[in-house]
This record gives sequence, C-alpha cells and structure tokens, in this order.
Amino acid sequence: MIRFLSAGESHGRAVVFILEGIPAGFPLNFDFINKELARRQNFFGRGGRMKIEKDRVEIIAGVRGGEALGSPLCFIIWNKDWENWEEVMHPVEKSSTPPVTRPRPGHADLAGIMKFLQGDIRNILERASARETAARVAAGAVCKLFLQGLGMEVWGWVEEIGGVKAEWGSLSREEIKRRIYASSLLTPDPQAEKEMKSVIEKAGREGDTLGGVFRVIVDSPPPGLGSFTQWDLRLDALLAQAVMSIPAVKGVEIGEGFRLGRLRGSEAMDEIFFENGKFRRGSNRMGGTEGGISNGEEILVRAVMKPIPTQKKPLSTVDIRTKEQAGSWVERGDVTAVPSCCVVAEAMVALTVSNEIKRKFGGDSWEELRSNYHGYREKVEKL
Amino acid sequence: MIRFLSAGESHGRAVVFILEGIPAGFPLNFDFINKELARRQNFFGRGGRMKIEKDRVEIIAGVRGGEALGSPLCFIIWNKDWENWEEVMHPVEKSSTPPVTRPRPGHADLAGIMKFLQGDIRNILERASARETAARVAAGAVCKLFLQGLGMEVWGWVEEIGGVKAEWGSLSREEIKRRIYASSLLTPDPQAEKEMKSVIEKAGREGDTLGGVFRVIVDSPPPGLGSFTQWDLRLDALLAQAVMSIPAVKGVEIGEGFRLGRLRGSEAMDEIFFENGKFRRGSNRMGGTEGGISNGEEILVRAVMKPIPTQKKPLSTVDIRTKEQAGSWVERGDVTAVPSCCVVAEAMVALTVSNEIKRKFGGDSWEELRSNYHGYREKVEKL
Amino acid sequence: MIRFLSAGESHGRAVVFILEGIPAGFPLNFDFINKELARRQNFFGRGGRMKIEKDRVEIIAGVRGGEALGSPLCFIIWNKDWENWEEVMHPVEKSSTPPVTRPRPGHADLAGIMKFLQGDIRNILERASARETAARVAAGAVCKLFLQGLGMEVWGWVEEIGGVKAEWGSLSREEIKRRIYASSLLTPDPQAEKEMKSVIEKAGREGDTLGGVFRVIVDSPPPGLGSFTQWDLRLDALLAQAVMSIPAVKGVEIGEGFRLGRLRGSEAMDEIFFENGKFRRGSNRMGGTEGGISNGEEILVRAVMKPIPTQKKPLSTVDIRTKEQAGSWVERGDVTAVPSCCVVAEAMVALTVSNEIKRKFGGDSWEELRSNYHGYREKVEKL
Amino acid sequence: MIRFLSAGESHGRAVVFILEGIPAGFPLNFDFINKELARRQNFFGRGGRMKIEKDRVEIIAGVRGGEALGSPLCFIIWNKDWENWEEVMHPVEKSSTPPVTRPRPGHADLAGIMKFLQGDIRNILERASARETAARVAAGAVCKLFLQGLGMEVWGWVEEIGGVKAEWGSLSREEIKRRIYASSLLTPDPQAEKEMKSVIEKAGREGDTLGGVFRVIVDSPPPGLGSFTQWDLRLDALLAQAVMSIPAVKGVEIGEGFRLGRLRGSEAMDEIFFENGKFRRGSNRMGGTEGGISNGEEILVRAVMKPIPTQKKPLSTVDIRTKEQAGSWVERGDVTAVPSCCVVAEAMVALTVSNEIKRKFGGDSWEELRSNYHGYREKVEKL
Repeated sequence: MIRFLSAGESHGRAVVFILEGIPAGFPLNFDFINKELARRQNFFGRGGRMKIEKDRVEIIAGVRGGEALGSPLCFIIWNKDWENWEEVMHPVEKSSTPPVTRPRPGHADLAGIMKFLQGDIRNILERASARETAARVAAGAVCKLFLQGLGMEVWGWVEEIGGVKAEWGSLSREEIKRRIYASSLLTPDPQAEKEMKSVIEKAGREGDTLGGVFRVIVDSPPPGLGSFTQWDLRLDALLAQAVMSIPAVKGVEIGEGFRLGRLRGSEAMDEIFFENGKFRRGSNRMGGTEGGISNGEEILVRAVMKPIPTQKKPLSTVDIRTKEQAGSWVERGDVTAVPSCCVVAEAMVALTVSNEIKRKFGGDSWEELRSNYHGYREKVEKL
Repeated sequence: MIRFLSAGESHGRAVVFILEGIPAGFPLNFDFINKELARRQNFFGRGGRMKIEKDRVEIIAGVRGGEALGSPLCFIIWNKDWENWEEVMHPVEKSSTPPVTRPRPGHADLAGIMKFLQGDIRNILERASARETAARVAAGAVCKLFLQGLGMEVWGWVEEIGGVKAEWGSLSREEIKRRIYASSLLTPDPQAEKEMKSVIEKAGREGDTLGGVFRVIVDSPPPGLGSFTQWDLRLDALLAQAVMSIPAVKGVEIGEGFRLGRLRGSEAMDEIFFENGKFRRGSNRMGGTEGGISNGEEILVRAVMKPIPTQKKPLSTVDIRTKEQAGSWVERGDVTAVPSCCVVAEAMVALTVSNEIKRKFGGDSWEELRSNYHGYREKVEKL
Repeated sequence: MIRFLSAGESHGRAVVFILEGIPAGFPLNFDFINKELARRQNFFGRGGRMKIEKDRVEIIAGVRGGEALGSPLCFIIWNKDWENWEEVMHPVEKSSTPPVTRPRPGHADLAGIMKFLQGDIRNILERASARETAARVAAGAVCKLFLQGLGMEVWGWVEEIGGVKAEWGSLSREEIKRRIYASSLLTPDPQAEKEMKSVIEKAGREGDTLGGVFRVIVDSPPPGLGSFTQWDLRLDALLAQAVMSIPAVKGVEIGEGFRLGRLRGSEAMDEIFFENGKFRRGSNRMGGTEGGISNGEEILVRAVMKPIPTQKKPLSTVDIRTKEQAGSWVERGDVTAVPSCCVVAEAMVALTVSNEIKRKFGGDSWEELRSNYHGYREKVEKL
Repeated sequence: MIRFLSAGESHGRAVVFILEGIPAGFPLNFDFINKELARRQNFFGRGGRMKIEKDRVEIIAGVRGGEALGSPLCFIIWNKDWENWEEVMHPVEKSSTPPVTRPRPGHADLAGIMKFLQGDIRNILERASARETAARVAAGAVCKLFLQGLGMEVWGWVEEIGGVKAEWGSLSREEIKRRIYASSLLTPDPQAEKEMKSVIEKAGREGDTLGGVFRVIVDSPPPGLGSFTQWDLRLDALLAQAVMSIPAVKGVEIGEGFRLGRLRGSEAMDEIFFENGKFRRGSNRMGGTEGGISNGEEILVRAVMKPIPTQKKPLSTVDIRTKEQAGSWVERGDVTAVPSCCVVAEAMVALTVSNEIKRKFGGDSWEELRSNYHGYREKVEKL
C-alpha cells in the first residue's frame, strides 16, 4: 500500500512530502517530476506568485542512482521567497506583524479559527493554502511514472471556464493531446480558449475570479481495481474522495455523472461485446467502473472548481477581534486556476490508482510487481 | 474512531455488521432503527422483493438494557427467503444449479469475474447487490441517533426522478419535512410526485428503469469537523467518498456543486456577518464546508443515482463460457430506487459525520463525549 | 490486506466475527475450524464452563459451496447457555440483577469502569472476558488453512506451567508434534506433563491459579515478509502486538529473546551458508526475522501467560459504591489456561502472517495469489 | 490521532519525519528536542560515528513562533557527513563504487535482498540502519513534551549490559533520576556501571559486542487508555509493537513479564485499596495495564536488546554473487548501544501513549485537548 503525507505552510520554509510504497528498482525521471511542477504553475490566468516560485524537488531520501530503494521517498520543494517571510513565519521567534483578523468568505479562515481556537487567521491560512498541492503534484508525478511503467497514462483537460465550454467532438485522442499541450489553458478547443481568455481578462479587470470544469482520464487501466465487497474499497468512491479533496473542488462525477440521472436504464448502460479475443464495450458512460471496480475501460472523472475566493472586490466579513463588519482582506491572486486544478486532479487520480495497484498486486520490487501485474492480465485474457 | 464492516450475500443466510466506536452508556432506540430499515424498502417504484423482506435487526452484541456497552455492536438482518435459496447458496455443499454466465451491463458482473477470476457470475452478484445497503442503513440509524443526541439531524429528499424535478421554493424546513414524510417518493412537491409516479409507471410498463437526484442535509453541525491539514482528512472529500460508495451513485456535489463553476467569485461565496453574539452567513452555497472543514452551517450533499441497470429489456452481452453474443439475463426488479438511495445516503453521511465527531471529541462514554462536545461549542461561542 | 473485527459478550447472545481478505476460490475446511475451537476448550486445568460450550461456527456469509467468495467471511459462535443469562444480559430490557461492584485485581474491572465511567462492572467484564478469543481461534483457523495452502504450518507448544519446565532436547519436529497432540497440556515432555498436572491439581485444591510459557512456530515461511522501511511495518513488532494482545499475556520474545541480552555478538548471530543452491543458517537464534523481515527460517515467538486472576481465594479490593474494603468477587474458573492461550497465540500469529502475505502478494483470487507467491519464491531461488 | 512517517538513509542526505496530530497552540521546546537527540548519541560504548553527527533538527513545517500550528510537523536532521558519501549515495547518478555483496548475519542484509530482489546490499542496509531512530527520538521528544504538558513523564534506565545487572533496591525515584542522568550508561547503580564499562572495554578489545536489558516508565498516566474491546486497541500490545519495532530489540515485557509465569494467582495480582478519596494498588506487577487498559498506575515496559551484530570478528557468510563462503564484511561500529536503545524506547512509548491520548481525548487545539483531559480526570475522581 502507498502512504503519502505532506507538510509545509504556504510562506514557510518549504513544502515536503514522504511517499511510501514505490517498489525497489523502479526508475525515476526527475525531469518529468519537475515538468509536472511547472505545469501546475504556468497556465494563463495565474497571478504574480507563480513567477517567483519555479518549483523544483530536492531529493532527500528513498532514491539511489536514479532508482527507488523501496524505502520511503522524501522530496522537498523549498520556498524561494522565504527570506521575505522569515519574520512573519519564524518557527521559534514570535512575529511582531499584526495578526490577520478578517476571515475571507470561501476560505478556511473562519472555520479554521473555530476548529483550532486561534486568534490569528495566518495560523490557518498558511496550511489551508493551495500551496500544499505542489506536494501532491510531485508525488502524483512519481505515481504517473509508476503507472506508465505498467502501460497506463493519466491525463486530463479543461472543459469549461467561466461558462465558456470547449468542444472536441470526435477528435482523436492524439489530436486532443496535441492541442491541450499547446494550449495555455489545457483545453482542446482553440476557439473556446480564445473566449476563455477573454472572459478571464474581463473578470481580472473587474477584480473578479472564475471557476470551471475539467476531466481526468486513465488510459488502459487493468480490470479488477477496487471492490464492492466493502463500502470503503470502491474505486469510484476513492476517486471521488481524492478529487474532492483538492481545494475549491465542489463536485465530482464518474463517467456521465449527473447526466445519467435523466437517462433510462436501456440508454444508460455500456453493452458488452467480444471481439478479437477480448471483451469490449459499445460505450463508456460508466466511466470505467461498475460495482466499484475498474472494468478495463478508460477511467473518467470529471470535477468542478469553484471560482477562487480571493477576489479584489472585498466581500462582507467580520473582524474576529472587534466583531465589527468589515470588507474581507484582499490578497494579490489569480483570476482562475482551473487548468492547475486539473493537473492536481491528475496527480490525485494517479495516487489513488497506484494505491489500488499495490493493494491488488503487492510487490516490493519493480520486478516482482510487474510480474504479478502481467501475470494477472494474462489470466484475465484467458477467461 | 468508528469502524464499520458488513458481511452478507443478497440471497445468503443474512446481512450482518459490526460497528465499533459508539460510546458506553449511549441509549439506543431499536424502533427507530427498524423504521429506518422499513423506509429503505417501502417507496413507490420498488419491485416484488421488498414485500418479502420486512427487515428487522436482531441484536447480537454490544448492547445491554438498551444502552451501548462501548464494545462493538453487532446486528443481524436475517434473510427471510433463505429456505428458497439454500440449495443455490449453501456454504458447504456445491449447488447443482447451473452457473450464471451472462454478465449484465451496468452491474459488477463482468468486472467482478475478471477481478476474482470466477466462472459463475453468481459468485459476484450476490455481494455486489444493493442488499448490503441494509447494513449501512441500520448502522447509519445508530449514527443518526448518536448525532441526534448531540442536537444534529441528518435527513434528505428526492429532487428529481426520470427528469421530473421537484420544486420547494421558500417552503420552511418544517413544511418540507411534513411533505416528504407523507410522500411515497420522499419528495416535497406533490405535483412533481404525481408526474414522477406517472413516468415510473410508464417506464415500468415499457420494461425500463429510471434514475434521479437527491440531497442529504445535516442540521446544526458543529464547526471544526474535518481538516485541511492533510488531503485525506477533509470532510467534504470524506462525504464524497461515503456517498459515491453507494451502488449506482455516479456523481456527488457539496453545496451548489457544479453550478459554482459558472458563477463569479463575487457571487459564489457566503458572506460573513455577526448577529446576536454569533457568526452567521448570508447564504450557504458552500454547503457547510470551507477548506475541508465544517463551518457550522447546514451541511448539504447532493448526488445522482443512475437508472437501475436491470431492466426487462435485455441489453447486449456475451456469454462468458461460449463467448457468444446474447441478451443479458433479466431479474425481477425495481423501476427506480432513488428514494431508497437517498435513505442509504443519509446513513452514509451520518456514519461519516459520526466518525469525525469521534475523531475531534474522543470519548469512551456518552457522558465523556457529551462533555467534550459541549465544552468545545462553548469555547467557540466565546471566540 | 486482511481486516478482522469481532463482537460479542461472554454471556451474551453469541460471539461473531467478520474476516475480510481471504481470496475468492479458497477452499475452506470447516471440520478443521471446529476442531481448532475444540482445542481451545479441552485442555487439562480448565473449569466447568468449557463443558457447556462445545463451540461450533455457524457460517453466515462469504462462503459458497465450500469456497470463499472473496467477500467478507462472517461466522457466529452461539452461546449455548444464553437462556440462563437472558435476563441479566438482555439487550433491551433493564436487568433487575444487582450490579457487580467489587473489581477483581488483575482483570479489566477497575480500569474498565474508569475508562467507560460505568457503575456496573458487568458492563466491563463481559467483553473483557477471554470468551472473545473463540473468535480469534476461528478466524485464525481460516488463516492457518490459508497458510497451509502456501506450504506453511503454524503450531506451538507449552514449555512451562507453574514453574515446571518441559524438555525436548533434540527430538525431531515430527516426534514433538506426535507428543503434543497426544498431551492434555500441549507439551512434548510426558514426565513434565505429569508434574504439571500435579502442580495444577495442588493449586486447584488450594483455590489458586497458575501461569506459564509457550511458543508458536511458523514452518517454511517465505523470506521478505515485513519491512524495516517504517517502524510499523516490522514483522517482529507486528507479531509482538498480536501475541501481547491476548488476555493475560505479559511478555513476548522473538527467537532467543531475553537470553540474547547476555550473549556476545560473536555468539548470538545466525551464520550464513549456501548449500544445494540455497542459503541456509547454522542456527536460528533470531527466530526467523532480521531487520524486521522474515529471513526464510522458522519463525519463533515465545510468550508468557500470567496466572488467571480469578482464584477462589479472594484478593483485597474495594466496593465501588461504598468505597469499603472487601474481598474480591469470586467466579467459578480455571486453574490454568496456558495450553488454550497457546492455541489463541497460534491463531494470532496465523492472522498476522496472513496479513503480511496479502500485503506482499496481493491477490483477489486464490489462483492469482498462489501465482504471485510461487513466482516470487522462484525469483528468490535464482538470486 | 497521530501519524508519524520517517524517511532517510543512513548515509543519505538527511533523516526527515512528518508528525501529524500535535494540537494547535502547543508550545514546543527545541532545546529539549536537541538534547534528546544528543542523549541518543553520547553514551559510553558508542563508536566513532557518534562524534561526527551532533544531530540537530531543522524545523521545516508545522511550527510558528514556538507553537504548533495544528498542521503536520516536519523536521530534518541533516547528515553532516554527506559530502563523503555523495558519490556512493547520489540520488540520480549511478555510483562507481562496487556493490556490497557479503550479507552480515544479524542484520537485514540477506532478508532484505531477498525481499527487494536486489544485488547490492547497500540498497538494503542504508535504510535498515539504526540511523532512522534519530527521527523516532526527535518525534518522541515532541511527544514527551506533549505528555509533560498533561502531567506525565516518560523516562527509563539500563538494567543490565553484558550480563552485569544494576541494583536500585528501594531508592526513591528522585534518587534514581539523579543517578541515571549522571551515568554514562543511563544506569542507577554506580558499582554496576563500573563493571559494565569494564566488560564493554573487554568486549571492544576482543572485537566483540554486547546487549542488555532496559526499562521505560510512564509516570502519572491517566486510567482508560487502550481498550479490550478489540484486539488491536489494547495498550499493552501497542506498547509491545512500538518497542519491539526498535532495531535489535528481541523481547518485551509489561510489568513483571516473564516472572509472572512462575507466580501463583494469589501472589501475582495488584490488590485494590481506597485512600484519601482515590483507588490505589498495593503493588504494580501488572505494569500499569489490566485488560489492555491503563489502570492509572505507572506504566512499565521492559525490553532486551541483542548484541550489535556488527563486530570486528567476521562471522561466516556467503558472497551473494559468487555464492562462495566468506567472512562477513566489517564496519566500524559500537560495542554496545543499550543506553541509546533505551532512549529510543522512551520515544516509542511516548509516541504510543500520545496517540492513545489523542484517540481518547481528541482535541484540535491545546486548549481543547487539555480541557477534555482534565474534565475526564475529574469525572474519574468522582466515581
């Protein structure tokens, strides 16, 4: 099984994570991991901080000569801007900077000070910030490589921003990939991208923010991941948890999701055929899971990101010391982060599927795991 | 913390569960638990089996003189129809009944035989059946009682079936409750209910099935459940997992969910006010969680149930022995189970929130837990 | 991974358990399981209750036609004496029997009423009773069968009771087995057995009780179970937890255990040789684990059971209502239960090793798991 | 609940850990943490490396202005000797240093290469090294502070090294503390200490190593930690796992441990009295747990450390490439590390008890947790 814990405050010394369960002998590609970190940062619509960061992992543990040791991986992503924050965030010395006392609606601020009984909202917002998703993306990049080694691919794209929808009709998967990796908004429809940029710029000028919808796909998964035998083993539910756990995600669908509620049973299912020695489906409305188990079809997860809650127009709030009504405190920020959110969701899906791979196939070494994996796939082919 | 494991096949001897973590001295109301089981079974649109069952719990362990002992609860729900299934499902003797070999699209059948490398689909469908949700409803009923003891209420209603939407405008919560508990479809709009019944009857006549949408609410939760400090501690994500784990659920939203993707940040947040010594919100679009933490507002989860995959019109499938194309095997079944699914979702939400209550407040006895709970709520009021 | 939860009070309706993780298609032998339950009950030195019980499992879930379904197993062991206890232990009606108020030293009684803030010690002692170990033995019997299917055997014997030590010198394992299964105290030394019986009878006459020491062995384990990569993955530590969790066990050793503290490094290690294409050791002082990993040698766990705390001579205690000094309440009981404790320890070791097998080899079906297991063993042979 | 994961190879870049669950607002004392790290290193009998190290934590996350934020703590202990190891242990570049191919008996070496299917024993020994216990000591120091904040103290001493036993008769706890903190072997008997040093020096001259026995104590624990309600919740068993997980520990006892096997029931129990409004015991043979629950008496865990397996006299082994018999590879090392092992065990006991505190009392902030803790203790006093 995989264990993943991260630590690190937004303006603290660094973001760190420990990732346990990658088999010994697995070859790691650090360029890929750093490129995934860059993907998270470089989309259109992000504010100033992204330019400062240029995240890169420093490898602390678990890797030797380019290969996993089987021991826990630990990577650090240092905060490049630490010197400007050291007084505020010093681990030992008390800061003389005044506390943050105006909770921002839509953030963890108010819920957080109630949970932790704190008087300075900074003690909440630092860990609640989306900065921690850098750790998820780096760990997810390791998992993407792991799944690639077994013939899978995890990727995704932006479907909609600020109400502007992309269309991709019957484009081939290769063409979609070509387009999204050329797009500054991770979207396959250049015409929609132009409109998205225009609504982003307009919202930015008006001090406002935008949300949107994206999808994540797992190509060529094995059947048999997840299980109906206990509620907490279902793959679809684990994917829902993983994607809903991303800051600002407020809805998740598997396959056709909410649209299935309006179809009849006779229209909604994926009929079964047998061709060239294999089962295949006439459609994939279920998004690759039936009964909480991967059925071998492409896994499809869709999710919505709410608009970023920090906009330049202050919202009504209350100062927690004085209890007086006030405008919410305004930070420099992004107009939209839907493409970045899609990258984080790819990471979370990769982490989830990797964990299910470990649960089903075990394997302490890359040699052992691959042997178990391919042995199973051969058995399924012979059913 | 709460642990919950269930066991039992659809046509097996019984469904059983063990529920650990209910504090010693907590008073249980078995009428309520049995009524919850009845609610799961008795809605309009359910097929014949529901009449057979009349589920009731037999208490095996963990309760004495009406109060929880602090040891694990174990309840059994016996299968009243066991004598008719004993030959097929005998635990020791091999059955002479021919195996089931035509996987039904939309069920776990095909994915299951690939996962478990089985030749008889009955070995899959028995546990994959929604029968196991009876255990969830009974365990959830215990959790509902537990939350009631702390002043919370978990309930929900059907919003839409087969494309027919209920309306409830500005009805009071009391009026909605009155209506849904009088409704045979757990819906607050009698006019829509009439139309829903009509589309259900029509689909039934045509051998087809319907899905729909429902919501679950937690009234009066404390702030501070869940946490942003690690991805797998977020309350919204745990709720998403719990509800997505229900058979046939394919999408989950927290608060306004997918609708938030089209709003601007200035429109989407819940502004903060202070009145009568308490923080309050001007709206609840977030559904009661911010930063993965309950913020004290009503918790709102919405979900979609796909149409039941077993309809009388057979779908295309393949016989797993002969590999020949065939019509899928047809079982007697329901036309729709959206209201029942809502009852199961109430149970899963109650289980999830109860677990977070235990995580935050600990407590081996009802006296200790209540003291911790109310002590915290007083501290929050004084912030 | 395996999950195991049990429920049930000593004089309640039944003891029940759910065991998850046994692969689909695994053949179960219920005679063996019932014989293991009988072994727990039938040794010399046990008191009257053992005659009443004659425990047998009733299979509730997870098995069909003699094979595991891959879904959770649930077995019930009914309390044959329930009718005599129904008034005292009724789940719903309050009993009119006076509460138990004199905590017995050495039992959970006093610690339990403090933990759960209870006024009737019966609410503690019922679940704290060793009765729950019947569930462990039945679940452990399933795991023993599972390990047997992979060529392992879990067994053990009594080394010492009441200060009388068995000797077995250089007897072959086969001879030891023959002797212990013929012994009424599960011990391989007939002379010592005679003395043990004599000290047991003497203690019994004097209203006193005895403890002792036993060992559990796993024959032919694979190398590679457990891990040094994280503290909570170590096999030796998991075995220690499993065996120390048995009521009345107060010490656990792996291999030579405490004796190693007095040896020098040059005397204490197991030197490595290579013969007939295999690594072998010149000794097994480490008990089959190095660095928290099984090294392929026989796994050896030793443990001590304290004397049973309920003896007929009352000990000093305090009435919890009156706070007056009193003699502790005396129940009919056993003089010693060391052989039974050894049977329970075999079960716990089997459960622990089975879980590590699942962690390393995964496998949803018996076919898949065996293939992974034997594939790994072949790879190790080729190192 | 507490989660603790560490990472780091012995000669790698650093040892790191993440510790989750320390409540917000808890004040940390970094001098204490660094002193605990120093204690682990500075005893008599340790070899050269200890002088290089001088471990100190660098705080990466989870602390601000001297107080825990409630977010995960992350501390790094850098390897001061990294520059000398960078070529051998480079995370990306392959080392040109020849592989280690002679497994050392008593180490993880042979079991490890079989588990992970590796050809270079360095890939095993680096993580299997006791270097990782530095992370345990630092995390345990945090937990010791946490328990101190609740009025508990975790400490311990060396009872025996190389067969030389310390005596402390009826010395007061204060006197024992004074002596052990003045001792270079963490032992309360200056005469025995002198002899221990002498046997250590002799063994060192002869290229050999020594083991021994130590104890760890928790002063003033609350009653009610741990539970008999499920096997894996028992405090004694969790302590056994925690202490047995320390490299080279091969036996663990709670209270009188193996000595209880030879006592009669009438001699072995701790009788109950009531004085000055409190329950008290006439003895503490049980080591502070009954029925798997803390009973409020001092918690006592004893353990044995085997002699360090790396001695200068090579042991018989086999070269894993050539399969030829060889002398085991010899590293510079310590003669004995029993006092250090005791320090690590104190840390593991502190971690375990802290986790049980969180399980019973919950609490996201120091204020909330203390209130729950003291509220419970008051309720117990009123029983």
